[in-house]
Amino acid sequence: MQRGRGLSLARQQGEPQVAVLAGGGGVDALLKLEPERPGRMYGLISRLKAVTGRREELAAVLLEGSAGMPGCLSYVVARDLADPDALWVTEVWDSRESHRASLALPSVRQAVERGRPLIAGFGERHETEVAGGHGLGG
Amino acid sequence: MQRGRGLSLARQQGEPQVAVLAGGGGVDALLKLEPERPGRMYGLISRLKAVTGRREELAAVLLEGSAGMPGCLSYVVARDLADPDALWVTEVWDSRESHRASLALPSVRQAVERGRPLIAGFGERHETEVAGGHGLGG
Repeated sequence: MQRGRGLSLARQQGEPQVAVLAGGGGVDALLKLEPERPGRMYGLISRLKAVTGRREELAAVLLEGSAGMPGCLSYVVARDLADPDALWVTEVWDSRESHRASLALPSVRQAVERGRPLIAGFGERHETEVAGGHGLGG
Repeated sequence: MQRGRGLSLARQQGEPQVAVLAGGGGVDALLKLEPERPGRMYGLISRLKAVTGRREELAAVLLEGSAGMPGCLSYVVARDLADPDALWVTEVWDSRESHRASLALPSVRQAVERGRPLIAGFGERHETEVAGGHGLGG
């Protein structure tokens, strides 16, 4: 529950643990740090509008393109029940850096190319730090 | 990808399969239905505002209260990076009915009681039909 509190900058951007030691108080600081910060999960909640009538195709492209991404703990594609053209994508990553790295994967780049003509627009997008939950890493 | 299309009312609200048979075309209809509709996952995306300074307590209550809910495939609590008081809760259920039933669980009712004084307000809330993804049922 207390992940990320107080020491939230230490490993942001995926810097290795050694950076914490180099910049801070040595082994004592590390020993204090570890129980509080086993990791810092990064989340995204995004809304997309598909071209009318092509939502299912867009969902399929997103699901195919998101398979097997390293560091991805959860990736869910859902149809908005109130808008026949809207999809929600909710993501959980083991770090912000893993998400960034995924954008260079061939499978993801191909999905972006295939999805582009199916997207009418981008809606809201929220970045989060995931506190925890059920169904992560499945 | 095609879940829920065309036959979307048949098992909504958790009605048993027999209701489809009784109302419709018998075994042929069932055979046509099954490949298309192995299930209908229900999702919720909700934003909560905690009382200032009490977001971590609220996150802990939500996570504790959501453990072991039958039919829950994913339940993630995340801190909004742009608002120090806001939390996002993203949920995936095997059906809308499982979500509804969870509200009567003693663990959930206790969490609602414990969480109430920590909540300053409710933000947006979106109902979805989940198309698929990674990290469900973990």
